[in-house]
Amino acid sequence: MADTAPNRDLSALADFAFFERMRVRWADVDMQGIVFNPNYLIYADNAMTEYMRAVGFPYPQALQPFGADIFAVGSQIDFKASARFDDELKVGARVEKIGRTSFRFRIAAFRGEELLADVRTTYVCATPGETRSTLPVPEKFIAVVEAFEKVKPER
Amino acid sequence: MADTAPNRDLSALADFAFFERMRVRWADVDMQGIVFNPNYLIYADNAMTEYMRAVGFPYPQALQPFGADIFAVGSQIDFKASARFDDELKVGARVEKIGRTSFRFRIAAFRGEELLADVRTTYVCATPGETRSTLPVPEKFIAVVEAFEKVKPER
Amino acid sequence: MADTAPNRDLSALADFAFFERMRVRWADVDMQGIVFNPNYLIYADNAMTEYMRAVGFPYPQALQPFGADIFAVGSQIDFKASARFDDELKVGARVEKIGRTSFRFRIAAFRGEELLADVRTTYVCATPGETRSTLPVPEKFIAVVEAFEKVKPER
Amino acid sequence: MADTAPNRDLSALADFAFFERMRVRWADVDMQGIVFNPNYLIYADNAMTEYMRAVGFPYPQALQPFGADIFAVGSQIDFKASARFDDELKVGARVEKIGRTSFRFRIAAFRGEELLADVRTTYVCATPGETRSTLPVPEKFIAVVEAFEKVKPER
Repeated sequence: MADTAPNRDLSALADFAFFERMRVRWADVDMQGIVFNPNYLIYADNAMTEYMRAVGFPYPQALQPFGADIFAVGSQIDFKASARFDDELKVGARVEKIGRTSFRFRIAAFRGEELLADVRTTYVCATPGETRSTLPVPEKFIAVVEAFEKVKPER
Repeated sequence: MADTAPNRDLSALADFAFFERMRVRWADVDMQGIVFNPNYLIYADNAMTEYMRAVGFPYPQALQPFGADIFAVGSQIDFKASARFDDELKVGARVEKIGRTSFRFRIAAFRGEELLADVRTTYVCATPGETRSTLPVPEKFIAVVEAFEKVKPER
Repeated sequence: MADTAPNRDLSALADFAFFERMRVRWADVDMQGIVFNPNYLIYADNAMTEYMRAVGFPYPQALQPFGADIFAVGSQIDFKASARFDDELKVGARVEKIGRTSFRFRIAAFRGEELLADVRTTYVCATPGETRSTLPVPEKFIAVVEAFEKVKPER
Repeated sequence: MADTAPNRDLSALADFAFFERMRVRWADVDMQGIVFNPNYLIYADNAMTEYMRAVGFPYPQALQPFGADIFAVGSQIDFKASARFDDELKVGARVEKIGRTSFRFRIAAFRGEELLADVRTTYVCATPGETRSTLPVPEKFIAVVEAFEKVKPER
C-alpha cells in the first residue's frame, strides 16, 4: 500500500542549494517523544520564507509590486524518520518545478545525513483576498531562482 | 502543474459515516485571515482520534493489547478553499484502504457543503518506541471499521 | 517562594456563569504527557471568544461600531494540576473587574471539580492598528456582562 | 485598573547575561498581524532551554541525576508592545530568585532596545510523573547560575 507516494524519488542533501538550520523545540514534540507531524509543515513554511529571503525575493514584500500573493494548493509529505526534542536539523528548500501560474517547493528535513521528512508543496500565484484570480509567476522570481539553484527547476 | 495530486477524486460529504464538528479558533488563523495550512493536519489528527472513539476502537488504548502503535508515514493534502476565524466546520473521517500492516485515512474539512481541505494519511502499525517493527493491522480494527463505514474500504 | 501568586484566592466552579466544554487534543500534550503550559492561554482565548458570543457581544464584530478592538496587556496564570490527553475539561470564563478603559477576565480550566489552571487576563480597549489610543469600555458590553454574571464584576 | 501588574519593575536589557536570538515565524502571527499572546510563553520556554544549555545544566538531562524534573507553577506576563512577522527578537533569560524547592525565571523579549513581553515563571523541582514530591533545587544548578548571572539571584 505504497500508494500515497507512488514512484517517489526521495530528497537528497546534495540537491539543495539552501538550508535552514533549526533546533526542535519542546513545543514541537508530542507524547510519543517525537515531533508531531503537523509541525513539519511549519518547518517547511519557515524554510520557504528563509529561502525567499536568501534568493533576494523576500516574502511577502517582493510579491507586492506584482499585485500577487501565493497560496498553497497541495502538499505531499513523506515521514521517513522522527525528529526528537533538541535535535539539530537542516531543512533544505528548493524550487523544483515552475509552471505558468504556480510553482512547487521541495523541502526536506535532515538530521545529519538522515532524511526525516520530505515535503512537496505547490503554490499558486493569485490576487490577494477572497477572489484569488490566478496570476503568472513573476519573471523576476523565476530569474532569481534559476540563478540560485543547483538543480534546474523543471518547466 | 496539477502534479502534486494527479488523478484526484475529491472527497464527497456523502462518503463519510463520521463527522467531527468544530469551530475555527483564533489561534488557527494567520495574517491572511485564513486557517494556516499546518492546522488542517491537526484537524485531521483530531478527527482521526474521534473516529477511533466512535467506532469503539479508541486511540491509543485499543492498540495496546496488540503491542502496537500507529505512525503516519505519508500525507497528501489538497487545499481547496480557506476556512476563516469562527467558521463552523464538519470534518469527515473514514478509513478508505486497509493493507496488511498499514491503512489509509481520508479526512476532509467541509464548511456546509463546501470542501475546504482533503487529507489522505497512511498509518503503519508497528511496535512502539525506536525500533518500530511493522505489525499486522489488528483484525478487530478491520472488523469495527468495516461494520461502521458506508463506503467499504479497499483491501 | 510563593511570590508569583501572593494571597491568591483561587477560582471556584460556582463563580462562573459560563463554561466552555472541550477535550484535550493530542496536539496540546508534551513529552511529559501533560498539556504544555502555553496551551492554557489558548484555551483561555477560546473561552473568552465563546463567552463573548454567549453574552451577545461576539468578538470582534460587536466592538466594531465603537471603533474599538481589545488587546491583552497582562496575564497571570496559576498552574495547579495537569490536564492529560483526551481529558474532558470545563473552562469557566467571567469578567471579574471592569475599569474605565480595561477589564479583566478570569478563566479557569476544571476537570470535574478539580481546578487545573487559573488565568487572569487584562484587556484594554483601544483603536485597532499600530497607534492604539485607549477607548472607554463600551457601555453596552458592561450592561450585557452585568446582566449575565453571577458574581457582579468589581468596578 | 493596573492591578494585574502592581508596582511592577520592568525588565531591562542590561540585567540579562543570556539572550536567545530568534525570528518571528509566520505560524506565530495572528489576524491582527501580531504575535498571538500564547506564543510568548513558547518563546520563554525556548529561551529557558537555551539558558540551561548555556550555563552548562542542560534540560532535562542535567536534572536526572537528582531524580528531579521541573514543573511551572505560575507565570505572570506583561504584554508591552507587539512583535510582528519576521521581526528579529532578542529573548533574555535569567534566574532572578532561588528558593528551597523552586526558582523563578525572568524572560523578556526585546526588539532592539524595546521591551515587548516580560515573563516571570516559577518552577518547582519535584519527582517526575504523577506524584510530584517536591525536591530541593540542586546545589549544582544554584552554583552554575550564580557563576553565570550578572544580577545575583535573590535567595
